[in-house]
Amino acid sequence: MPADLNAFHTFLKPSEILSLSDVQLADQRRRFTAAPDMVLQPHSVESVQKIMRHCFEQKIPVTPQGGNTGLCGAAVAQGGVLLNLSRLNRIREVNLADNSITVEAGCILQHVQEAADRADRLFPLSLASEGSCQIGGNIACNAGGLNVLRYGSMRDLVLGLETVFPDGTLVSHLHPLHKNTTGYDLRHLFIGSEGTLGVITAATLKLFAKPQTTATAWVGVDSIDDAVSLLTDVQTHFAERLCSFELISRFALSLSSGFLQAQQPTDAEWHILLELTDSLPDSGLHDALAEFLFEHGRENCILAQSEQERQTLWALRENISAAQRDLGTSIKHDIAVPIGEVAGFVHHCAADLVQQFPDIKIVCFGHLGDGSLHYNTFLPNIVSNEVYAYEDAVNQTVYRQVLNHHGTIAAEHGIGMIKKHWLNAVRHPAELSLMRAVKAHLDPHNIMNPGKLLPDSE
Amino acid sequence: MPADLNAFHTFLKPSEILSLSDVQLADQRRRFTAAPDMVLQPHSVESVQKIMRHCFEQKIPVTPQGGNTGLCGAAVAQGGVLLNLSRLNRIREVNLADNSITVEAGCILQHVQEAADRADRLFPLSLASEGSCQIGGNIACNAGGLNVLRYGSMRDLVLGLETVFPDGTLVSHLHPLHKNTTGYDLRHLFIGSEGTLGVITAATLKLFAKPQTTATAWVGVDSIDDAVSLLTDVQTHFAERLCSFELISRFALSLSSGFLQAQQPTDAEWHILLELTDSLPDSGLHDALAEFLFEHGRENCILAQSEQERQTLWALRENISAAQRDLGTSIKHDIAVPIGEVAGFVHHCAADLVQQFPDIKIVCFGHLGDGSLHYNTFLPNIVSNEVYAYEDAVNQTVYRQVLNHHGTIAAEHGIGMIKKHWLNAVRHPAELSLMRAVKAHLDPHNIMNPGKLLPDSE
Ligand SMILES: Cc1cc2nc3c(=O)[nH]c(=O)nc-3n(C[C@H](O)[C@H](O)[C@H](O)COP(=O)(O)OP(=O)(O)OC[C@H]3O[C@@H](n4cnc5c(N)ncnc54)[C@H](O)[C@@H]3O)c2cc1C
Ligand SMILES: Cc1cc2nc3c(=O)[nH]c(=O)nc-3n(C[C@H](O)[C@H](O)[C@H](O)COP(=O)(O)OP(=O)(O)OC[C@H]3O[C@@H](n4cnc5c(N)ncnc54)[C@H](O)[C@@H]3O)c2cc1C
Repeated sequence: MPADLNAFHTFLKPSEILSLSDVQLADQRRRFTAAPDMVLQPHSVESVQKIMRHCFEQKIPVTPQGGNTGLCGAAVAQGGVLLNLSRLNRIREVNLADNSITVEAGCILQHVQEAADRADRLFPLSLASEGSCQIGGNIACNAGGLNVLRYGSMRDLVLGLETVFPDGTLVSHLHPLHKNTTGYDLRHLFIGSEGTLGVITAATLKLFAKPQTTATAWVGVDSIDDAVSLLTDVQTHFAERLCSFELISRFALSLSSGFLQAQQPTDAEWHILLELTDSLPDSGLHDALAEFLFEHGRENCILAQSEQERQTLWALRENISAAQRDLGTSIKHDIAVPIGEVAGFVHHCAADLVQQFPDIKIVCFGHLGDGSLHYNTFLPNIVSNEVYAYEDAVNQTVYRQVLNHHGTIAAEHGIGMIKKHWLNAVRHPAELSLMRAVKAHLDPHNIMNPGKLLPDSE
Repeated sequence: MPADLNAFHTFLKPSEILSLSDVQLADQRRRFTAAPDMVLQPHSVESVQKIMRHCFEQKIPVTPQGGNTGLCGAAVAQGGVLLNLSRLNRIREVNLADNSITVEAGCILQHVQEAADRADRLFPLSLASEGSCQIGGNIACNAGGLNVLRYGSMRDLVLGLETVFPDGTLVSHLHPLHKNTTGYDLRHLFIGSEGTLGVITAATLKLFAKPQTTATAWVGVDSIDDAVSLLTDVQTHFAERLCSFELISRFALSLSSGFLQAQQPTDAEWHILLELTDSLPDSGLHDALAEFLFEHGRENCILAQSEQERQTLWALRENISAAQRDLGTSIKHDIAVPIGEVAGFVHHCAADLVQQFPDIKIVCFGHLGDGSLHYNTFLPNIVSNEVYAYEDAVNQTVYRQVLNHHGTIAAEHGIGMIKKHWLNAVRHPAELSLMRAVKAHLDPHNIMNPGKLLPDSE
């Protein structure tokens, strides 16, 4: 161990220094293995500051790590310090007047949801990884998930941040201010910065009234264009009550209904699962939705009449991922396009892929309400990780169509290691140059999560 | 005229070059007078690029100007080019699938509201200056206004920006993406940058469903704490339906009711004007609000039974500014504190001010729902602009209490010229240093709106 790593023992508690065998070094997808020289788990913000001050002086790389659920290799330490934030996990304050909650970065998302719930409020961010991902990771990746349509991404849910800059300086803006314009907004620079600008130690987040009633419908539609026109009608009428508007292809539904041995709710080319919620307990939402669908001539549809029926419908959506496993290992894409472009994208991308890979299978579903798609592609007879040999070729085709349709190659998982060579395709050189300038100013020795997010310079 | 200003004639249309007498050189408050060497009014984004390229090369200062309604002297050109954006005023696209509108920076806010309305949508930003302020100015100042409680500030309403960097580079991200995380977010750097980082030429903005029903109540309350508890109850129950929650002091109401010769709706220390809206035409909102107020024991209240009664209630709120003119010229404050701190701030600030200025009169009202207050102070027997001699002393006291209560000295009007010497009090030196680094990278010759927003360096 290089000499400068020994110094941590002089200013940290023994329990703040872990051994390499205490932590998971493989990433979520078992694709990368971290190789840190040291694993530190500070118990306080002061310890984070001390660590950063020392690393800044000694030019030791630091990779912040939350729940290690990230999907693009952004928290994989390659040497230096792996800075695990799990012990900074206090809920500092719930503020009902301001509808806000102040939590430390290492709080597990689900614990924050639960703390909000105990205060009769909703913290709306919801991901399948919520039982282990952490608020700091959610902010660093600008996480999305299930409720973006109504409540926005993590970016929209952050009122204030407490951060430790690479040189150890603490900058704290945790008071819930709903209007504030005092110079350039630096909070939004940190949100989505994937640990490359500094360490997030705490955040003040927005809370919302808890939904009291839910109405859920499954609608068969002829085309994606038809689905988009249904979306527009529902939003015009029900406005913020619309929480979910999920698109499912015929093929995706056949997989999940087969897997669950369940009946298909409707027979159609495309399927929509939509859900409304309301904070009023007796809002007549179910009847209003029934009437709306009837008046709009939507007969190929089912309304959930009970919580159990609702669960059955959602199971068909949620089990697509499990059901597709029989097809092999897939190449997945975290993409979004403008909602008005989804139909065109799906059409053109499938045509392109089939031309290149005649036997390719495409499982397409996603959050039509915010334009983001799960677009999973399977090459038959290719097993497990061998598929990654084809990743670049498939991505090339998919991303070309994403860009043709004015979309993004990274909707909610971030850039990390696996997409940084694509950043040049979506950001202007002048923007990349500004990003590098910001990075160089805050982190002149390039110690914060080096090798992530920003493309390697030539 | 210096030689390098002549060059504009070689690449702009004659009608893109105005004479100084064509424009208003005084600012909105008649406090500052602009002294540009030239006034340019580009008709196209290409012209903006050409102007910036030339100014960058020749190091000519450029001050972007929208509707000139800003309240802190941020658009006052001191030499160089006054770049008036009024002719970049096309509505480029209304996109119903994505609930978005793409407009050029010179569009007047009201015209954007009207375009949204014609498409059966709401663009919610609403200010008293909406008939003349422009979208570019709204973005550059992160404008707030009446609907922030429900829809957020301008920052929350921008999906994408088209900008011309100081060296003339065009960077465009106008496609409506609802999820997108591809590196550092630079859109939010430009929002609120008051013309100091570059020129905004167009923006894609969010649209919403149009409200179809409204319920309005006026409630007398004993204290601000009582008002905050009413706010919490209403938000828990009605969630996003709550659009306005205005606080009015006994003194402020006495002024406006006297001015209008109208009856006071309630007799109380403090008054609340609250309004709910709903996108459903038959939402039973009025009855639900009546029942809610009854069940919460709120008897000192009035519900508007007709649009006319609603107008009467709002007139009492909206005429406070006009009514207070008889008190003389006021020193105004654009401040916000966390909602939970409003009561403490109002109490302590009044005590401090009265101690210093025994005859001071305070007219206090504002958007309690987002914590921002109109806090107008009158020193008796001091006429018109003479009052500015006391501005620093009054501000010192008010801002000290704002900061004690964790608030902001600039809620929605920005910093401009008049508050830049206060920025050190609200931003950490490390933040100011990062802001200067961003500015220096984009604008190495300091040509973009020099002398605004950033404190003068020692
Ligand atoms: C089953 C599953 C489902 C998922 N579903 C979704 C989904 O629907 N939507 C979605 O958006 N994502 C989803 N994800 C991805 C992932 O859960 C999110 O990106 C999550 O936000 C990562 O949080 P984490 O704490 O695990 O971060 P990590 O993986 O530990 O780190 C991610 C990045 O954040 C940085 N970081 C972490 N903490 C800090 C900190 N305190 N300060 C500075 N930087 C920090 C790291 O350096 C790294 O760059 C899913 C993942 C899984 C495994
Ligand atoms: C009666 C009245 C009521 C008001 N009420 C409110 C209110 O409730 N809430 C609120 O927030 N504000 C309010 N304001 C303040 C003002 O209207 C807003 O700040 C508005 O957003 C300014 O827009 P503008 O087009 O007039 O900008 P200007 O005054 O022309 O410029 C303001 C700043 O923006 C910059 N700028 C303008 N256009 C561009 C561009 N295209 N690119 C880059 N920079 C640009 C300028 O350089 C300057 O720094 C009010 C003003 C008045 C007169």
